[in-house]
Amino acid sequence: MPIIESIPNISEGRRPEVVNAIAAAIREIPGVRLLDFSSDASHNRSVFTLAGDAAPLKEAILRLFEHTLREVDLRVHEGEHPRLGAVDVVPFVPIEGATMDECVRLAKDVASEVARRFGVPVYLYEEASANPARKNLEDIRRGEFEGLAAKMATEGWAPDFGPSTPHESAGATVIGARMPLIAYNINLNTDRLDVAKKIAAAIRQSSGGFRYVKAAGFKLEDRNLAQVSMNLTNYEKTPIFRVFETVKREAERYGVSILESEIVGLIPAAALHGAAEYYLQIAGFKPDQILENKLKGD
Amino acid sequence: MPIIESIPNISEGRRPEVVNAIAAAIREIPGVRLLDFSSDASHNRSVFTLAGDAAPLKEAILRLFEHTLREVDLRVHEGEHPRLGAVDVVPFVPIEGATMDECVRLAKDVASEVARRFGVPVYLYEEASANPARKNLEDIRRGEFEGLAAKMATEGWAPDFGPSTPHESAGATVIGARMPLIAYNINLNTDRLDVAKKIAAAIRQSSGGFRYVKAAGFKLEDRNLAQVSMNLTNYEKTPIFRVFETVKREAERYGVSILESEIVGLIPAAALHGAAEYYLQIAGFKPDQILENKLKGD
Repeated sequence: MPIIESIPNISEGRRPEVVNAIAAAIREIPGVRLLDFSSDASHNRSVFTLAGDAAPLKEAILRLFEHTLREVDLRVHEGEHPRLGAVDVVPFVPIEGATMDECVRLAKDVASEVARRFGVPVYLYEEASANPARKNLEDIRRGEFEGLAAKMATEGWAPDFGPSTPHESAGATVIGARMPLIAYNINLNTDRLDVAKKIAAAIRQSSGGFRYVKAAGFKLEDRNLAQVSMNLTNYEKTPIFRVFETVKREAERYGVSILESEIVGLIPAAALHGAAEYYLQIAGFKPDQILENKLKGD
Repeated sequence: MPIIESIPNISEGRRPEVVNAIAAAIREIPGVRLLDFSSDASHNRSVFTLAGDAAPLKEAILRLFEHTLREVDLRVHEGEHPRLGAVDVVPFVPIEGATMDECVRLAKDVASEVARRFGVPVYLYEEASANPARKNLEDIRRGEFEGLAAKMATEGWAPDFGPSTPHESAGATVIGARMPLIAYNINLNTDRLDVAKKIAAAIRQSSGGFRYVKAAGFKLEDRNLAQVSMNLTNYEKTPIFRVFETVKREAERYGVSILESEIVGLIPAAALHGAAEYYLQIAGFKPDQILENKLKGD
């Protein structure tokens, strides 16, 4: 059975009873697994991680909308994290036996139903969007809920589905399909923040680096170390080993070496396998040579 | 549910009807999956790959004995591959959620039942054997079926289970537990067989190299390349990346580089993950950070 992941973000992170009730509603849907959920009070935002096939996932996301729209009113919502909607963003991610095309179809199907059933305008993003100006979540969300009515009235910002004005209390929602994201940090053997910042600039898309890398330099004050903190947004096209090797080479310019790296949260197995294949120079490797994959097949 | 693998080798590879009947008998056991089976006519030998939990695996191996003992008579058996028994060797391998201790217990349990039910003497090997002289399959099998009666009469060669003389038509069987074996080849950017042989000698246990490496140098005549061909018998203790890096360094002595490497057959996912962790210098990585593992859990 194909597995698609969805990671809906909602604008509620201070009332555990509301978040728990939504989690419970999701758990009731057969064929959907709630892998994780967590709230951030200062962001006033919660993130759910769901997995399942397309049909039950759609059902779960609609249930999440129903509960969230009843409970969250953006007109009185405050929090540090930028947001456009009560249900702010809903990505679908292909994991196993599912293609990106299927996730795009699912995103559009859910978007259409959300607009129809709840009267919330929906913007498609990432792979689900055909409009280059509306692929990046940050571009769509710029102006936030408070600026939404004005933005929607601007040319080029009619939503993909639903009404052409914001939902009174729920704003708008961004729904789309993307590759699994890898949060990856590299700690440098130095306390020099400027080195981390220069390396980050060298490797990230926005300043001329790799297409699917977002990066920033930080200082880990408690360890007195500089860190290159990254999001790898498409590990197939910009693989983790190429990023690592480039950071290593750039660091050498400043006489700095890599102390260690760190995967934050989850990583798809294929990203690790790709690194093993690269470094071990394995030719002609096929995923069904992995014992565990063979055991799953029939 | 824990998964144990078993790879019984039988001394019959020329009568497909016999081998197919054994495969069919294995497939009838609920809880056991027959992942693969293949025969070699010149070896006159067949290899089955089964996976399942301990109890159904035991049932399947006993069924395999029953069929094989009825059909195979070593007194009239010829083939290139060394063999001691009609059922020659039965390893049990921990794969998922199963420990080596469980595999050792299963090996002893099956060995005891084989001796009791079929009157076949059984030698334990690898992790199931407490006797250093009787850990290696090659040591136990030396002399083969034809020399078995004399060997069993020698001090130190009483079997672990069953009668102290060979079974008339089925000889003896070697049963044990071991780690998954990785068949791994490295092709060198040279046609010099002597370089491959020197590198093989440098890395293999038998001539002073790594504890869990067997290796030999070969010439790939059709590609005019030298190859270091290896079996890695414990990838946890002698990891694939360390072997690769050592081969690379040894090759440099002769001005030779690595063209490519090759995994023959199956490799446990953890061996690939270990290589990715090593090369990417990932600190504090946990298996449950792999998305697919998370999806399997609950």
